[in-house]
Amino acid sequence: MDNVVIGLNTVWVVLAAAMIVFMEGGFSLLEAGLVRTKNAVNVTMKIFVDLTFGALAFYLVGFAFMFGGDWSGVLGIDFSATSTGVTPNQLPISAFVLFQIAFAMAVASIISGAVAERMKFSAYIVTVMVVCGILYPISGHWIWGGGWLQQLGMKDFAGSAAIHAMGGFAAFALAMVLGPRKNRFNKDGSVNVFAPSNIPLASAGAFILWFGWFGFNAGSTLNALDSNLSHIALNTFLAAASGGASAVLYTMARFKVADPSMAINGSLAGLVAITAGCAYVGPKSAILIGFIAGVLVILATGWVDKMKVDDPVGAVAVHGFNGAFGTIAVGLFDTQQGLFFTGSSKLLMVQIAGVLVACVWGFVTAYGLGILIKKSIGIRVTASQEEEGLDVIAHGIPAYNELERFSDTGAVEYFAASLEPTQQKPILQMQNK
Amino acid sequence: MDNVVIGLNTVWVVLAAAMIVFMEGGFSLLEAGLVRTKNAVNVTMKIFVDLTFGALAFYLVGFAFMFGGDWSGVLGIDFSATSTGVTPNQLPISAFVLFQIAFAMAVASIISGAVAERMKFSAYIVTVMVVCGILYPISGHWIWGGGWLQQLGMKDFAGSAAIHAMGGFAAFALAMVLGPRKNRFNKDGSVNVFAPSNIPLASAGAFILWFGWFGFNAGSTLNALDSNLSHIALNTFLAAASGGASAVLYTMARFKVADPSMAINGSLAGLVAITAGCAYVGPKSAILIGFIAGVLVILATGWVDKMKVDDPVGAVAVHGFNGAFGTIAVGLFDTQQGLFFTGSSKLLMVQIAGVLVACVWGFVTAYGLGILIKKSIGIRVTASQEEEGLDVIAHGIPAYNELERFSDTGAVEYFAASLEPTQQKPILQMQNK
Amino acid sequence: MDNVVIGLNTVWVVLAAAMIVFMEGGFSLLEAGLVRTKNAVNVTMKIFVDLTFGALAFYLVGFAFMFGGDWSGVLGIDFSATSTGVTPNQLPISAFVLFQIAFAMAVASIISGAVAERMKFSAYIVTVMVVCGILYPISGHWIWGGGWLQQLGMKDFAGSAAIHAMGGFAAFALAMVLGPRKNRFNKDGSVNVFAPSNIPLASAGAFILWFGWFGFNAGSTLNALDSNLSHIALNTFLAAASGGASAVLYTMARFKVADPSMAINGSLAGLVAITAGCAYVGPKSAILIGFIAGVLVILATGWVDKMKVDDPVGAVAVHGFNGAFGTIAVGLFDTQQGLFFTGSSKLLMVQIAGVLVACVWGFVTAYGLGILIKKSIGIRVTASQEEEGLDVIAHGIPAYNELERFSDTGAVEYFAASLEPTQQKPILQMQNK
Repeated sequence: MDNVVIGLNTVWVVLAAAMIVFMEGGFSLLEAGLVRTKNAVNVTMKIFVDLTFGALAFYLVGFAFMFGGDWSGVLGIDFSATSTGVTPNQLPISAFVLFQIAFAMAVASIISGAVAERMKFSAYIVTVMVVCGILYPISGHWIWGGGWLQQLGMKDFAGSAAIHAMGGFAAFALAMVLGPRKNRFNKDGSVNVFAPSNIPLASAGAFILWFGWFGFNAGSTLNALDSNLSHIALNTFLAAASGGASAVLYTMARFKVADPSMAINGSLAGLVAITAGCAYVGPKSAILIGFIAGVLVILATGWVDKMKVDDPVGAVAVHGFNGAFGTIAVGLFDTQQGLFFTGSSKLLMVQIAGVLVACVWGFVTAYGLGILIKKSIGIRVTASQEEEGLDVIAHGIPAYNELERFSDTGAVEYFAASLEPTQQKPILQMQNK
Repeated sequence: MDNVVIGLNTVWVVLAAAMIVFMEGGFSLLEAGLVRTKNAVNVTMKIFVDLTFGALAFYLVGFAFMFGGDWSGVLGIDFSATSTGVTPNQLPISAFVLFQIAFAMAVASIISGAVAERMKFSAYIVTVMVVCGILYPISGHWIWGGGWLQQLGMKDFAGSAAIHAMGGFAAFALAMVLGPRKNRFNKDGSVNVFAPSNIPLASAGAFILWFGWFGFNAGSTLNALDSNLSHIALNTFLAAASGGASAVLYTMARFKVADPSMAINGSLAGLVAITAGCAYVGPKSAILIGFIAGVLVILATGWVDKMKVDDPVGAVAVHGFNGAFGTIAVGLFDTQQGLFFTGSSKLLMVQIAGVLVACVWGFVTAYGLGILIKKSIGIRVTASQEEEGLDVIAHGIPAYNELERFSDTGAVEYFAASLEPTQQKPILQMQNK
Repeated sequence: MDNVVIGLNTVWVVLAAAMIVFMEGGFSLLEAGLVRTKNAVNVTMKIFVDLTFGALAFYLVGFAFMFGGDWSGVLGIDFSATSTGVTPNQLPISAFVLFQIAFAMAVASIISGAVAERMKFSAYIVTVMVVCGILYPISGHWIWGGGWLQQLGMKDFAGSAAIHAMGGFAAFALAMVLGPRKNRFNKDGSVNVFAPSNIPLASAGAFILWFGWFGFNAGSTLNALDSNLSHIALNTFLAAASGGASAVLYTMARFKVADPSMAINGSLAGLVAITAGCAYVGPKSAILIGFIAGVLVILATGWVDKMKVDDPVGAVAVHGFNGAFGTIAVGLFDTQQGLFFTGSSKLLMVQIAGVLVACVWGFVTAYGLGILIKKSIGIRVTASQEEEGLDVIAHGIPAYNELERFSDTGAVEYFAASLEPTQQKPILQMQNK
């Protein structure tokens, strides 16, 4: 009988983890579609960095900091934590580890969007390794690993604070350190919008993220016998639907068009906002939370612009602001302890304090890290590299080569989708000379 | 022990529902690839409408009509139906609700394809809310909610009739009300083919749909202990494989080329056709049903053209005709009650009657709805808007902006992938002025 | 109780099979992104052939050869093998059959990449049917169906040898028979690189493959109660992460850029290499195996080039070489029987012998088949067809039609994304004349 329960839990958590890993593909396509064509390969490769360097850093170092035996509520310190065995609630440790790796990568991927189109690739690798190996695990320990925020009673079911607010404000800090893309802000305070290069690709990414979020939130039960499991999945879906709807309505009312980037980000904002409370609020509350999130993300995007911080895909607005909102919303809508259901603001205060800590921790440490990288190996590409685009500079190839053709000599010339032949040398050709 | 069974059912149905939700991404990419570039954002956004407005309409209203306590076989009327609890076959209600929301969205998405490239976006939102909130739930109640067709003994396991035939003929009616796209039909009766804009994107959509269909059909067991579950999944796969094969062979024989749109639609037709019978027929019958479907979809596409009805992605041929065929095929191939196995035509008659009802219901109500919308808020964009494309008109941005660049003034100009600068104003720029 | 176990196993294997079927979409997008634009439809359609003709050939013929009652260790011969019932380890036969169909298609899809851009479509259909119906099932029987290699004690958990090495070297043979694409190799021994046409599309394919691989490897338990299940999933992930990381580091060191094709292929190489040993090695070994694979795939790509064999997507390097490496690695890293843990080379010898057999069998039979097809129906398109691209030649339509427009006469003209109007006749127009 125990065997069957363990087997069922294992299947559930492994499949949920696979869906969360697949979300990395969602991040990749979303960002590749939202940035300019000349940087589409670069954002894709940065997601590969999350999946490789980030994942390994978390597995080899971060997991112990986060879930190792607690030391004074501050840090885990047991480096044998990834050993074999079964957790008290009958889940193999290896399934738990896999699931947590997938979560850690999400933090890196949130950051990847905000630093797009101008960050050095090597600087990004270092950033991801530090974030996944050290920064996220520490605040994650406070919220989920038995640390002081958890001891205070903070409720963050699947990580509106631990993942999204922390990651979103770390992204904000790094975008500040990097500075805006060339020509992004005019002297008169107006903003130049760089058109997303590929809307169908971005939407494909959004659909994958929506799919994976079922694993993200419902999978966080870590227990197939949790009687709340399908309720969590339903709440997750309803908030996403509601966030998309309000974003569509809002853009239609304000801009006379139903803006696709905002519709996508509205749905994602609903998903982020329900992530903390999906296990604690009712479905009607989930709809309301999503609805607010879909508007909040648009207002927050405007605010980030006003701060003259350049976030090419809206990561700060989606993850930072809605992660914070979603964490606080638990204090309001929680059916057991929320202000609206009990009249008591006790949980609300804890939630506000907890998410503030997550935001500040993410912002301050990432800012410090960014400055450190800037002063050592450098954090930003040169102006001419930015102009040419990171795809050719850092990866040797443009994203789309529909116009590639042979020169008279029989050698291949690469063409960017739009422009003149690049100076790129086909790299594998060199290899054989 | 009951706990374990409920947990297993929950995991199964939640994962199946997630896969069906993901099918919306499949619809989106399929349609974005099959329509012309200038409308690729618009079809994507319409799928977002299905996922948001359509889902909420079904959750808040339609579910009660469909599964509330039966009233004379005609309608459900219990609006407390979405409450918590567990169904008699040990599935939490919330899992059942989520699964049914995903089904309802599919009906809307079937329609979205047939009305592509010319329908007003606001008219589409209204259509989806009425279809998901009222029209589909009523006929759905007849077939699945304890209504009169179910009482007659109609067998429609996962919805060849309830979803696909109903949705397909509703799509047919709305395409009629809308009228064909400009230049689609010539006076001499010949048809102008508009080349699909992006075949790899369309195929990505088809692969997602194929993947999600395992959740759609096998998930309809709503019960992980159903000993038929893997048999259903195998039948589903075999019919899809067979439908794709026959479409490839048929187009090679008739047109000398293996047409990609038809190969895709052939596989989808096989999936649609096996949807009613996947739990009732043997694998050899599944192969035969799929094989017929793969040819039928091509013939039906020609018939729709001959009727001068313009269905840009073949939704009527795929879902309407093959939904009807698949429902009838149960009357022939059902191993317990089918004509070929028992010699009795009793089930066959019920199936024919039932699917006729579904088709007529879908067609008549959607036609009426279309006329109503046409006379009130208007259903079709203007000729000049259609010429320019709905992406820029309704969503303020073209699908592909590979050629975007700065003007001398430093402001961004958008370029459609092909042509001159549009008149589009970057919307977020306005926001900050 | 048995009911519950069977239900759990069924759900697990059906979902894993669905994920493996979805991998076909991954192969399709990966290849469509890595080949030149003019052949992107063709590679997509070849994956459809795998999913249709290949799947049916395996179901109707191959399965019996592979898993039918063993005859002298050489072949299965019981054609009632696909009947209903439950396997000894409590899995319905139909689930097992579906899972094995998905595996067989993968072999065909490995081949599809290596023969891209120059093979006749009809020749490809024949090839796939023979590979899935006869060649793969025979060697598969030796390794997994109770045949002589299995009797020798060969360990190939999810098919580094049975699927990847066999498929990779069959691909190598067919690429040899076909000869290189025009202008691929210069007389001085240098290689012309044809730029991948669409990197974001290729990466989307890679993410789908990575996702599906959880089903591929962990699903191979065929048993949800296998206490090793999540360990297998974790190993699979770690090897992929490590392979991607080493490929990125290696290309940065050698070529000064982080090459996206190589990063993708590095991750895939890690996945291929861990496929044999995922159930037998520890996580640290998995990281090491992946790390080696990520470098090996780049070296092997160079070696294939040096052999003057043209493999457009690197299928031989990814699947052939790393399949062989991964099989041998079991002999080294197996915690029970591996050289590094026991000091005994007994298993290592069996692994080397077994994978040699798989490689030679794949190579020799595919070579013979290729020659046979070449001498009968012809295997390669004409030079002018190759120049024009297989999309228009074999499928009547280019992949991307962003520039499609009306001629003065109102008829549609197709434009390739880059070039002049093609001679293509819109096929459905003919249908109505």
